[in-house]
Amino acid sequence: MSETLKQLGEEELLTRISHYLPPGQIDDDTALIPSQKKDLLINTDVLVEGIHFDQKTTAPEDIGWRAVAANVSDLSASGVGKVIGLTIGLVTPPETEWQWIAEVYEGITNALKIYGGTILGGDCCNGKQKVISITAIGTLGRLRIHRSHAKNGDYLVVSGPHGLSRLGLSLLLNDPIIKNYNINKLLKKQAINSHKRPKPSIETIRKLEECKPDETPWRAAGADSSDGLIQAIKCICKSSKCSAVINKDSLPKPIFWPSGNMWDEWCINGGEDFELILSLPPLWAEAFTKVVPDSKIIGKITCGKSKVFWSDGSGEITSESMYTHF
Amino acid sequence: MSETLKQLGEEELLTRISHYLPPGQIDDDTALIPSQKKDLLINTDVLVEGIHFDQKTTAPEDIGWRAVAANVSDLSASGVGKVIGLTIGLVTPPETEWQWIAEVYEGITNALKIYGGTILGGDCCNGKQKVISITAIGTLGRLRIHRSHAKNGDYLVVSGPHGLSRLGLSLLLNDPIIKNYNINKLLKKQAINSHKRPKPSIETIRKLEECKPDETPWRAAGADSSDGLIQAIKCICKSSKCSAVINKDSLPKPIFWPSGNMWDEWCINGGEDFELILSLPPLWAEAFTKVVPDSKIIGKITCGKSKVFWSDGSGEITSESMYTHF
Repeated sequence: MSETLKQLGEEELLTRISHYLPPGQIDDDTALIPSQKKDLLINTDVLVEGIHFDQKTTAPEDIGWRAVAANVSDLSASGVGKVIGLTIGLVTPPETEWQWIAEVYEGITNALKIYGGTILGGDCCNGKQKVISITAIGTLGRLRIHRSHAKNGDYLVVSGPHGLSRLGLSLLLNDPIIKNYNINKLLKKQAINSHKRPKPSIETIRKLEECKPDETPWRAAGADSSDGLIQAIKCICKSSKCSAVINKDSLPKPIFWPSGNMWDEWCINGGEDFELILSLPPLWAEAFTKVVPDSKIIGKITCGKSKVFWSDGSGEITSESMYTHF
Repeated sequence: MSETLKQLGEEELLTRISHYLPPGQIDDDTALIPSQKKDLLINTDVLVEGIHFDQKTTAPEDIGWRAVAANVSDLSASGVGKVIGLTIGLVTPPETEWQWIAEVYEGITNALKIYGGTILGGDCCNGKQKVISITAIGTLGRLRIHRSHAKNGDYLVVSGPHGLSRLGLSLLLNDPIIKNYNINKLLKKQAINSHKRPKPSIETIRKLEECKPDETPWRAAGADSSDGLIQAIKCICKSSKCSAVINKDSLPKPIFWPSGNMWDEWCINGGEDFELILSLPPLWAEAFTKVVPDSKIIGKITCGKSKVFWSDGSGEITSESMYTHF
């Protein structure tokens, strides 16, 4: 059995954490970021036990992974070039076992192997409830993507399918709500993997930059779909002071996705898919779908007041967001 | 009476928080840091209710101030040039009043008026216990100060007096332990102010750079005394693989500081003074004390194994740190 943090004491805890940091990093509270001669992007995400993760469905290694993924996803939605690194603010009850911390750091380290960047230090402290606050920093690529830069006439594009993470959660919980569905095996595997190890893609931003038609200006709006597809579109609409219409026949459903209202709902409001939702000039949107195989044009931006409608006139789409944190 | 966060809802909460951010910042999760063409320093500090702050002794505005001060103090101890800004990860129970958040942000904003920099966004979430995780970022000045750069023969210098914050805490708590002492009025005021509004000085780093004698190399070790004076010296010794001797007659006591063991103990182990503890070549240390009026040479670095001794041979100094967080 692993020792608890209380048994270890702070000094031993820091020594053990230092194995996950670049050599010498633990000696100083601060970390150095060598001059990048570029603009930087910075983002903070807080994960709280019982809200963003749960012992039952999330192994500590997956928590570490997801904490990185959530941050990388936000950086991507702003146009990140490369990830420089991140700091970790960790709160844990004193009865937490060292093994839990070790596995969270393993998950973070493994995610950084994919995304690049290093752990730039952090702070840890005793508290009633587990909290992980990660601040990630990266360079900006060729284009700063803003939520507020959508324009009437833009096409709305998603970088990949939606609903997988929500299905993965129900599968992991043995949720009775799915027991009467015959779910394809491959879909099951993909869904659980999407929930446990979401993989936002920085590469997609490179492809977006490369496929821009010459006649199109460097202007793109975007958000990630961590809080759900419709929620992301609403955020873009609100910041850009516009509305959107979505084509029901173009919903970005995963392959083998069952039919029915619940499944449509999971696709548009399931959350935690960490895909990019972009608002692009039509030519650029079309070019994007040619270079990003899973991407799809799902609707367009219109004039109006921050609302999202079905294109067939069947009304406004509500985002019963499952990710309201208050 | 102020509304609770639960009554407000997440959207209204974000709208209200946006008033503390630079225009447009709330639209994107990420913030842009314009290219600095300089090395950067980054630091994360986590404050937890009941450990680092308490409703009884700390007003929310003071919590915000101290969160910034703790970070600036760490950046200073690494040789910060200027503060660029910070991100705020906030966890609060849903029954928290908006007024509490507003005052924390006021405190942060007021501290940034002194130290420079802006709020670069953040994240907020519901949780059982209040947690503030701040990540501050700044440029590096002329010299990176490392904990591990002390050398045998260096002088140990402190940038100011120690013990004030600890006395301030006892005064605020009406602690019976001080009731039989006749404490000078000015000292009382200074102590309460030091506890509520610690003011680490970036200016001291500029003076350190400017006073370096030509014949001395650009090498300095340092730490801040947020966890206590002896604890800071121990950290320097541990990282630099050396020991230290402290002169009992040179303790950096505040003016009007009473005599007695408890008072000496508060001076060396009281904590939260946010002064700089530097290990410098002797000539540089002497030059420093001439340009920083409150500074004092308190001892020197020797060969040995991470221990701190009294110079009169009366033994090792223990750091009964009150700031062990596990």
